[in-house]
Amino acid sequence: MNGAELLVRRATRLGADVCFANPGTTEMQLLAALDATPGMRSVLGLFEGACTGAADGYARMTGRPALTLLHLGPGFANGIANLHNARRAFSPIVNLVGDHPQAHLPFDAPLTSDIESLARPVSKWVRTSSRADALGLDFEEAFAAAQGLPSGVATLIVPADCAWDTVEAAGAGDSALGPPKSPERGASVSIEAIEAAADQICAAKRGAILLGADALSTGALGWAGRIARSLGTTLFCDTFVARAERGAGIPSLERLPYFPEQIEARLAEFDHLIIIGTRVPVAFFGYRGGKSQPVPASCRVTHVSGAESAASEVLAMLAEQVSSRNGLRPLEPAPSPERPQPPRGELNVGTLGQALAAVQPEGAIVVDEAATSGAAYWSAAGGAPPHTYLGLTGGAIGQGIPCATGAALACRDRRVISLQADGSGLYTAQALWTQAREGLDVTTVICANQEYRILRMELARSGITQPGPQAEASISLTKPSVDWVSLSRGFGVPAVRVASAEDLVEQIRASLTQPGPSLIEALLA
Amino acid sequence: MNGAELLVRRATRLGADVCFANPGTTEMQLLAALDATPGMRSVLGLFEGACTGAADGYARMTGRPALTLLHLGPGFANGIANLHNARRAFSPIVNLVGDHPQAHLPFDAPLTSDIESLARPVSKWVRTSSRADALGLDFEEAFAAAQGLPSGVATLIVPADCAWDTVEAAGAGDSALGPPKSPERGASVSIEAIEAAADQICAAKRGAILLGADALSTGALGWAGRIARSLGTTLFCDTFVARAERGAGIPSLERLPYFPEQIEARLAEFDHLIIIGTRVPVAFFGYRGGKSQPVPASCRVTHVSGAESAASEVLAMLAEQVSSRNGLRPLEPAPSPERPQPPRGELNVGTLGQALAAVQPEGAIVVDEAATSGAAYWSAAGGAPPHTYLGLTGGAIGQGIPCATGAALACRDRRVISLQADGSGLYTAQALWTQAREGLDVTTVICANQEYRILRMELARSGITQPGPQAEASISLTKPSVDWVSLSRGFGVPAVRVASAEDLVEQIRASLTQPGPSLIEALLA
Repeated sequence: MNGAELLVRRATRLGADVCFANPGTTEMQLLAALDATPGMRSVLGLFEGACTGAADGYARMTGRPALTLLHLGPGFANGIANLHNARRAFSPIVNLVGDHPQAHLPFDAPLTSDIESLARPVSKWVRTSSRADALGLDFEEAFAAAQGLPSGVATLIVPADCAWDTVEAAGAGDSALGPPKSPERGASVSIEAIEAAADQICAAKRGAILLGADALSTGALGWAGRIARSLGTTLFCDTFVARAERGAGIPSLERLPYFPEQIEARLAEFDHLIIIGTRVPVAFFGYRGGKSQPVPASCRVTHVSGAESAASEVLAMLAEQVSSRNGLRPLEPAPSPERPQPPRGELNVGTLGQALAAVQPEGAIVVDEAATSGAAYWSAAGGAPPHTYLGLTGGAIGQGIPCATGAALACRDRRVISLQADGSGLYTAQALWTQAREGLDVTTVICANQEYRILRMELARSGITQPGPQAEASISLTKPSVDWVSLSRGFGVPAVRVASAEDLVEQIRASLTQPGPSLIEALLA
Repeated sequence: MNGAELLVRRATRLGADVCFANPGTTEMQLLAALDATPGMRSVLGLFEGACTGAADGYARMTGRPALTLLHLGPGFANGIANLHNARRAFSPIVNLVGDHPQAHLPFDAPLTSDIESLARPVSKWVRTSSRADALGLDFEEAFAAAQGLPSGVATLIVPADCAWDTVEAAGAGDSALGPPKSPERGASVSIEAIEAAADQICAAKRGAILLGADALSTGALGWAGRIARSLGTTLFCDTFVARAERGAGIPSLERLPYFPEQIEARLAEFDHLIIIGTRVPVAFFGYRGGKSQPVPASCRVTHVSGAESAASEVLAMLAEQVSSRNGLRPLEPAPSPERPQPPRGELNVGTLGQALAAVQPEGAIVVDEAATSGAAYWSAAGGAPPHTYLGLTGGAIGQGIPCATGAALACRDRRVISLQADGSGLYTAQALWTQAREGLDVTTVICANQEYRILRMELARSGITQPGPQAEASISLTKPSVDWVSLSRGFGVPAVRVASAEDLVEQIRASLTQPGPSLIEALLA
């Protein structure tokens, strides 16, 4: 047994079962070990951002770390943007990054670089292994770190000699070890803090609760819905959430708006905001004279817990406390928002959101990297059949297609719908190929407004309402227009183009009846 | 005037004239300033790796820094792989990276990350600006750092408030400043060292000179050719060179082979190796029991200078010293290798190299990221008309299409031929779109062997000659095959597919007569 085999065996023993890989020479032993180890699936991405984004999607749907296999510093670097998103989603991921054999490193071969410096900004745990027989324990620590709350990204750098050196099975193998190290359970929240929050939400004239993390699961939302129904509390989630269960029968959440002044205006009617599973709202970007925490002074904030605690447990405890004060009404079939009818006519942001909400099947996983084009979808989907929503947490664009790929691999019995802005989709469209190779049931809807629409808005907010020719050219995706149908077919995914709401409805429906991936380029008016 | 305008004005005053941009919200003021400043061209890339690779190509062809404009940590991260290549090519580049306004940074907004930690591994100079009125001088230092020998990558992080804050023109503007700071000229090489090298090469029974950096320019190669002709010296360059002038009438260089044992075997016949403008050969990867510096003990090495000195000057001085000892024969029309005839029949690595060498026009810029498929081209092209060759210096794949884009922008009167491996090309194919938008005369030849061929070789070198099904799937680019013609058209670049040597010849010729970009998918047998 060599170090690579020791590592991969330990990984499967801990429950890891998939590795999104884009290996190179320094990872050949790890690749061979993945191949040789029963229970481990290796999935090729044509670009590392496809691998890391898929690992994020997989982790969000399973709660378990997926592995990635990346090639030295530059390969890791290509995966950083989606690891940034994963970090902001608290997704557990273990990156395996090959490096030169230790004896070769001082010679500064062309692909040598400081991998740890690249890894630290996106990783809660980074280690470079130094011995083959330590790879099992190194991996175990990485795996536990990824899962321990707040969960996140662990990066283990494996010099090639550690992977190829022989290890003594007796000394380093599984049999010599105790049970796997358990991940940290996270910080507990004191009963006093919960009691205080219960007092406050019960006393509030107009109270709101901002929920995040696993408080957005179906069970936890049931508690939140009972509190809201009993006290008249408004339930919010962040503008961008890692994962939320949504749809008919699930208490519905209002998403905080995007721009900080909109958040401040929305919260103006509340005298108290309780926060569980996330943090005090922070402006996505800072503006001249703008607030970084756009909460009005009139709204008192009680931050009960963030990502370091199990939010669903905190919420259940809060519900119990509220119940002991006020009683809690049972969760009746909530008056869910009505499901929209399939729209007709012009295809725009409004009808796009309606179309998807009108036809998405029960159990769908909707990956939303639609940026400005997704504006109408969230509220339209409140009355859709129960589904899972995955958002862009870190703002690093190029997340949607990879994330949809990983989610579909995690849940092969569910349809994934990837609502994808065109500008952002061009960063990592290579992940379409992995969807084709793996035969994943993903319907990608490209929201083709043919520009970086958000930047036009941001230019205007900067006072530049009439961009000059070069600035205009820098936010436009025309001259030439990107032909997504052609791109998609190039990656092996069948594709069509639609330009009306009814055609979009028809093509989404058609895609649902077909196994495997497909893509719809929705030309927005 | 705001800080952004101050910076961009300073940039144009220093001679920067192009910025490869993929901006976001934090770069809106810089984008507007690029637009407002005469003499500065802004070129959009659909992915940051396209921008940084284009900046590398531009720098290699002009010797001057191009700018990039990148969006916070994740945007920078997407550009790291090609900055790694640029660093290994000693290409001068100045990255401008926007960041949140300084007052907003402590709130850890979603896109916040440690940009400096990401930048350091690829940058010789990193700074985060702190004041608007310092942006002019900050840029000037970055620009000088990028150009100073050894030249390289400088990264200036610009918080949004520094860009938008007003500066007093009198205090911070150009008029108040002296002349721009000159870049460092580099380390000088002592005359004693040159004399010693001259003694050694004259005394060698079988001598060789390994050349790099600007010793691969036409003028410098003239001196090298005269030394070689007079002393019977063999001239080498590294396996991967940033830039070399080649073709009929230019003394031809032998490229060191790729694998370390091949290098060692090739050098076995020499008793002395003089090195100018590069370093002692280092194995690209380390292997079990393999040498990191594969130079046989029987070959004495004299390292005269590396990238920190002007190699062309060192070579000229060496030539003078050799001349004073032995005389130097004039450089006659060298017996250049014969130019191959246009091949017919099977399209394979051999006929691919011949086809290109047979039809490439005078003054072509050939960008070679063909990996294993480029094996036959170098030697075939020795007799082609004079041309410039740009190689993959850092091993981070996805360099060719962006580099070709930047080279074509730098030299609009020359035809660029981009010889591109298919697996590598899939990392940054988005740069094709920039070629289409800018109407660049680039002929891309995709070497479609439909696998990561080098990894099959490396697996075999690791002792894995019969990869298991998952390892096999991880090196294969089939199931489905990528349709490059469709991809290319999706990005707005006309494309054809060929499967015979004569069709490749015909299509390359046809592309040369058409302005603008085109792509040929060459299906290799």
